[in-house]
Amino acid sequence: MTDRDDPYRILTAVGPGTPMGNLFRRFWLPALLSEELPKADCPPIRIRILCEDLVAFRDSNGRIGIVDAYCPHRRAPLFFGRNEQCGLRCVYHGWKFDVNGECVDIPNIVPPDNFAALKQKASIKSYSVQESGGIVWVYMGPKELMPELPGMEWVELHEKQVKCSRWLHRSNWLQAAEGEIDTSHISFLHSKVNVGKDSPDWQRLAQDGAPQITLRETDYGFVYGSRRNFEGQYFWRVTQWMLPMWSAVPRSIDDPILAGRAWVPIDDYTTTGFGYVYTTERPLSTRDLEEVASGERFPPRSQKGTFRFAHGYVIDTYLPDANIGNDFLIDRDLQATSSFTGIFGVNEQDRALQESMLSIPGHAGIVDRSNERLVKSDLPIMIARRVLTRLAKDLAQGSEPKAVSSADQYGVRGIAKLSPIADFDEFMHAHANSMRAVEPSAGDERSSNLASL
Amino acid sequence: MTDRDDPYRILTAVGPGTPMGNLFRRFWLPALLSEELPKADCPPIRIRILCEDLVAFRDSNGRIGIVDAYCPHRRAPLFFGRNEQCGLRCVYHGWKFDVNGECVDIPNIVPPDNFAALKQKASIKSYSVQESGGIVWVYMGPKELMPELPGMEWVELHEKQVKCSRWLHRSNWLQAAEGEIDTSHISFLHSKVNVGKDSPDWQRLAQDGAPQITLRETDYGFVYGSRRNFEGQYFWRVTQWMLPMWSAVPRSIDDPILAGRAWVPIDDYTTTGFGYVYTTERPLSTRDLEEVASGERFPPRSQKGTFRFAHGYVIDTYLPDANIGNDFLIDRDLQATSSFTGIFGVNEQDRALQESMLSIPGHAGIVDRSNERLVKSDLPIMIARRVLTRLAKDLAQGSEPKAVSSADQYGVRGIAKLSPIADFDEFMHAHANSMRAVEPSAGDERSSNLASL
Amino acid sequence: MTDRDDPYRILTAVGPGTPMGNLFRRFWLPALLSEELPKADCPPIRIRILCEDLVAFRDSNGRIGIVDAYCPHRRAPLFFGRNEQCGLRCVYHGWKFDVNGECVDIPNIVPPDNFAALKQKASIKSYSVQESGGIVWVYMGPKELMPELPGMEWVELHEKQVKCSRWLHRSNWLQAAEGEIDTSHISFLHSKVNVGKDSPDWQRLAQDGAPQITLRETDYGFVYGSRRNFEGQYFWRVTQWMLPMWSAVPRSIDDPILAGRAWVPIDDYTTTGFGYVYTTERPLSTRDLEEVASGERFPPRSQKGTFRFAHGYVIDTYLPDANIGNDFLIDRDLQATSSFTGIFGVNEQDRALQESMLSIPGHAGIVDRSNERLVKSDLPIMIARRVLTRLAKDLAQGSEPKAVSSADQYGVRGIAKLSPIADFDEFMHAHANSMRAVEPSAGDERSSNLASL
Repeated sequence: MTDRDDPYRILTAVGPGTPMGNLFRRFWLPALLSEELPKADCPPIRIRILCEDLVAFRDSNGRIGIVDAYCPHRRAPLFFGRNEQCGLRCVYHGWKFDVNGECVDIPNIVPPDNFAALKQKASIKSYSVQESGGIVWVYMGPKELMPELPGMEWVELHEKQVKCSRWLHRSNWLQAAEGEIDTSHISFLHSKVNVGKDSPDWQRLAQDGAPQITLRETDYGFVYGSRRNFEGQYFWRVTQWMLPMWSAVPRSIDDPILAGRAWVPIDDYTTTGFGYVYTTERPLSTRDLEEVASGERFPPRSQKGTFRFAHGYVIDTYLPDANIGNDFLIDRDLQATSSFTGIFGVNEQDRALQESMLSIPGHAGIVDRSNERLVKSDLPIMIARRVLTRLAKDLAQGSEPKAVSSADQYGVRGIAKLSPIADFDEFMHAHANSMRAVEPSAGDERSSNLASL
Repeated sequence: MTDRDDPYRILTAVGPGTPMGNLFRRFWLPALLSEELPKADCPPIRIRILCEDLVAFRDSNGRIGIVDAYCPHRRAPLFFGRNEQCGLRCVYHGWKFDVNGECVDIPNIVPPDNFAALKQKASIKSYSVQESGGIVWVYMGPKELMPELPGMEWVELHEKQVKCSRWLHRSNWLQAAEGEIDTSHISFLHSKVNVGKDSPDWQRLAQDGAPQITLRETDYGFVYGSRRNFEGQYFWRVTQWMLPMWSAVPRSIDDPILAGRAWVPIDDYTTTGFGYVYTTERPLSTRDLEEVASGERFPPRSQKGTFRFAHGYVIDTYLPDANIGNDFLIDRDLQATSSFTGIFGVNEQDRALQESMLSIPGHAGIVDRSNERLVKSDLPIMIARRVLTRLAKDLAQGSEPKAVSSADQYGVRGIAKLSPIADFDEFMHAHANSMRAVEPSAGDERSSNLASL
Repeated sequence: MTDRDDPYRILTAVGPGTPMGNLFRRFWLPALLSEELPKADCPPIRIRILCEDLVAFRDSNGRIGIVDAYCPHRRAPLFFGRNEQCGLRCVYHGWKFDVNGECVDIPNIVPPDNFAALKQKASIKSYSVQESGGIVWVYMGPKELMPELPGMEWVELHEKQVKCSRWLHRSNWLQAAEGEIDTSHISFLHSKVNVGKDSPDWQRLAQDGAPQITLRETDYGFVYGSRRNFEGQYFWRVTQWMLPMWSAVPRSIDDPILAGRAWVPIDDYTTTGFGYVYTTERPLSTRDLEEVASGERFPPRSQKGTFRFAHGYVIDTYLPDANIGNDFLIDRDLQATSSFTGIFGVNEQDRALQESMLSIPGHAGIVDRSNERLVKSDLPIMIARRVLTRLAKDLAQGSEPKAVSSADQYGVRGIAKLSPIADFDEFMHAHANSMRAVEPSAGDERSSNLASL
C-alpha cells in the first residue's frame, strides 16, 4: 500500500489545489477561539489551516486579521511582529500589514515616487474573517463565492450559553470525523463495564452494540438515527452530519446541554479539533462549565502551548495532557474494573484510537484504509466518504457544493430519546420540534442509498 | 555510498520478503520475556519483529498470543484492547481475537446468517508461540516448516538457574551481532588500564590484543578459538556462534556462570538485544543476580519504557540508562585512570560504538561497510557474513538452512581456559566435555575456509 | 518552489564538491575555540564543518588534530577514543592516529611484514590546523593552495584583549551572514521603543530606518557606509565584509570595543556562529567581559552541550538558552513597552528571525528566496550574493579567489561616527586611520556596480 494506491487520498489531501482542499475552501471554517486574541493589539497567534501557514492578530480597533505567516520582504516570520496602531509590523525591517494584508508601511527605504504602488505589490495573502459564537471564522475560498456563516444555533447565542474549545488532534481529519458518525463505537469505546442493572446511566442504555441505523441525506449533509433495543422500548440516538466536517451529537436523553464537534485540517497529518457545548434556554451553569473543563467528554484536558512540526513550522494551540506520547494515560486497573478503555475522557478515548491506527507507510497519521473490513454499522462512514468524494470530484469539474448555500439548514441538533416508535421517519416526525431537522425532499434521488438497515 | 550500492544490504534488510528476513523467519526467535506478561489477562505488550508490528498478550488460560497489532475492522491498535475471557478485544468496536488470531466476536452487528464465515474472514495474522527458559518465543515462518526450539541448555533449566533480559539496541542487528564474534575487541573496548601485574583479573589475561584465531564451521554456525599468549601458556577463549544470531561467549576462566546474547531485528535500524546467564549445577545466587542487575556485563541497566519510532509506531521495551542521547555516560576521568573507555558496563561499551558507527546516508543505524579495512582478527566476522549471505541466497533459491533442523546441536558453551595446548583442535578435544561442542564432520567441504590464522 | 528551482542553491549548498563548498575550502575557517581543548590529552570534541564529520583533539604535546570522525577499521566513532601518548586511539580495537591522521598503531594484529605499508593505508583524513586569537583554525582545501591566516587584527592580540565565542545557529549560513550586512534592520530589530529624545543612546541615533548606503568592493570583500540623518549631522556606520563570511560591525560611536562575527557552515541547514570582541590598546576589563557574558549583544547566553542531528550524528557545541524551541523567550510585555522585539540580546533577535524564515519545502533552515521583495536598503545583500556566486562559479572553472591571497587586507574595522561629511569617500578618507580601510583601486571595473544609492 503506497500513497499513490490509496483510493481515499482524494479525501485526505487538503493542500491548496487538491480536490478536498478546494471543497474545504468553499466553507467558513473555525480557525481559533476568540479568547485566544483577548484584546486589541494582543500577541499574534500562529495557525496552520489546510497546509497554509498563517498568523492571526487582533488590531487596535479589535478587528481580526488572518494573513500569511511571513513578511514578503525577506520572508521573516510575522509571529514575532509588533501588533500596534492597526497593523502587524515585522520586527526585521519594520514593514507593516493591516488585517486585510495590505502593506501600510515600508519604513526602511526613503519613500520613492511610486511608493503607493510598491506597497500595493508588497501586500500579503489575507483571508476573510468573522467572529461569532466565541469562534474566529475564516473563509479561504474565492471571494466571489463567499457564503454566509453556517447557521448552527449556538453561533448566535449569548456568550454565556456557549463554550467552545479547540485542541491538537494528531491524525488526518477524516479518521477523526469518521469517529463522529460511528454510532456503534459508543457502546464500546466510551462505555463502562460492570454497570449495574439499576443504574440510570446512559451507558446502560447504549449496551446494545449493534444498533439499527437509518440514514437520510440532506442538503447540509445527512442525518441518521441509531436504534438500540432497551427493555421493550427503543433507545434512539440521532446524529447530524453537516458538510464538510461538522457533527451534532446527542449527549444523554433529553440532555439540556447540546454539543458537537468539528475537524479542521491543519495539514494532511494533523487536525484541530473544535468542540462546542451550549444551552438554548439559560446560561451554562458553573457546574456545566466545570464538567466541560473536567475533560470527561470534550474538550480534552489541555494546556495552551506550541506544537513544532518536523519541517520546522510552529503553531500555537492546545495540547492535550493525555496524548500519544504517554499512551493517553491508560489505567489498566481502571480498564479491568470500570472503564472499557481505562482511558479518561471521551475525546481521549477517540484520540487514543484514531491517532494510533495503522498508517499508510510514510504517512503517519493517515490510516491505511486499504484493508478495512467495514460492516453494516459503518454505513454512515461509507456514505460520508461517498458524499465527500462526489462533492470533491464535482467541484473539480466546476460544480459548486449545494451545502454551501444551505447555511440556514445547519441549525439542527443531535438528540437521544427512549421511544416506543420503531420507524425512523415516524420518530423524526414526532420529534421534529426538538431537532429542528430538515425534511429530505421526497423525490431526492439520493434517497435510493438510504434504505433502513 | 548509497543504499543500493551496499553489498551487505542482503544481510541488513529484514522485512517480509527479503532474503535475510526470510532466513530469520525459519528460526524460532526470542520475542519478549515471560515476566513481561506476568499473569492471565494482564496488559498486552507492543512489539516489532522483522519490521512487523505485533501485540503479545497472555489470555485467561495463560496462553500467549502474538498477533497483528491492528484490528482488521478499522485498523485501530489492539494494544489498547481489553484482555479478557480468552481473547483480546479491540476497544473501538469490541471485535475480539484469541491467541491464534481467530476472530471470536463481532459485537457491533446483529449476527448475520453467515456470521461464522464473516468471523473467519476477520481473523488476523498470528504466529506460533512457545514459552521456555523465561523467554516467549515466536516462529514467523511457514507453519509446515516449523522446527523445534533451539536446544540451548539454559532453555530447559529450572527458572532459578537462568536470568534472561532484553533491551533496546539502536542499530541494525548485524553490527551488534558482529560484536559478539570479534574476539580482539575485548582486549580494548572491555579492558581496564593500569591493571597491576599481580592482579588475577581476566583483563590481564586478555592483554594480548592480537590473538590467533582458528574457526570451524558447524551445522549450527561456527565455533572459534582465540589464543592469546600469557606467561608461557595460552589463554584460550572459545566462542560459539549459532545461526542466525546467537552467541555463547565465555566470561572468566572456568566461570560457573555461562552466558550469551542474541540479536533480534526490530526493523532494519533497531534491534532487541537478548542476554542470558545461567548455571548448570545450582541456582543463581543472590550475588550472581546482583551482578546481573548491576549492568557490569549485560544486560545494561535499563528501565521499562516505550520507544516511539519516527513513523509513529510505539513499542514496549527496556530502555538503557546509558544511551546515545547521553553519550553513554562516558566518564573521561575514569577513562584516564582505569577504564579503557570510561563507559560503565560491557553492553554499554558495545552499544556506544555500534550505535555511533558511520552510517549509510539516509540509513542511520546501518554502518557503512563500503570502506572498512578488515584485518586478520576480523575473520569470524568475515566468515559470518559469508555464511549468512550464502544461506540467504540459498533460501531465496529454495534451499532450506541446515541449522534449522540442527536444534539439538545448539547446546554448546563458550569457555575460557589457560592451557599449554597450542593447537585448537587438540584443545577442543581435551575440553570437549566442558563445552559440549559439536565435532565438525571430517569431510565437510566448508572446512576449506577454516585454516588456522 | 523546490530545491532544484532555487537559484541560490549554488550559495547554500556547501558539501564536498559543491561550488560554494569548494570556495569555503580555499579559506582558513574557525573550527572551535582553543578553550574547548584546554590541555594536552583532554577529551576530543565532535565537530561538523561543510558537511564533514570530524573530531578535534589536542595531543600530549599540545598540538591539535582535526581528523575524520570515524576509525577506518570498522567505522567506529573516534570521539569515544583515548587521547593518549600523542594520538587518539579508537576504543573498539585500539587503532591509533596522530594529529596528522597517520595511523601509528594497529594493536589487534601480530605485526605483519608489510606493517608500515598497512598503517600507511589506514591513515585517515586530517586537515591543517593553526591556533591563534583563541580560535582553532582549520584549512580544508588543497594543501598546495593553503594561504596564510586572515590578518584580522584581533588574531594577533594578547589573549586578554580578545574574547571569542561560538554557538549553534539553526539555519543555513547565508541567511545568517546576510544579517551582518543589512544595516537598516538595526533601526528595527535591535532597537528600543519609547527612547526619550534626551537619551544619548545609540538607539536614538539609529532611528532613521532608511539609511543611504554606499558600497565599495575590495579584494577582501567589500566595505559599505550607511548614512543616517541625525540632527543636522550624519550618523555613519561602516561595515566591513570579508570573504567568505566575516564581518566587522561597529558597536557604538567611537566604541573602544571592536567586534564582528563569522558564520561557518556545519551543513546546509545549520551553522556555527563565531563572535569576537577586542580592544587594541588595553586588556578587556571585567566589565567588558561581563557585558559579553550577559548575552546583550553577542554571543548569546549559551550552555556547552551536544546537538543531535536527525541523521544521528552528534556534535559538541554551545546551545543558546533562547532558541526556536522556546520562541527565543519573547516577552510580549517588554515588546509593548521598551524593546522592539521583546527578545533579549542582539544575537537572539537575529536568530529568532533567521531560524524561523519561510523555508524551501523539505529544506528547513534554508529560506525560500524565490519570492523576496528586495529594496534599496538590501543592496549589500544583493552585492554579496553576486560576488559569492561569481567567485563560486569562477572557482568551478579554475579561477582561484583573489581574497585568499589578500590575507593582509583583513585588518579592517567597522566604525560608527557622527560627522558633518555627506560623501562616503570623503568620510572614509577622513577616517582612514581609525578604520585601516583598504582603498579600492581606482580603475577597478567592479566599481561600476557601486554607485551611491
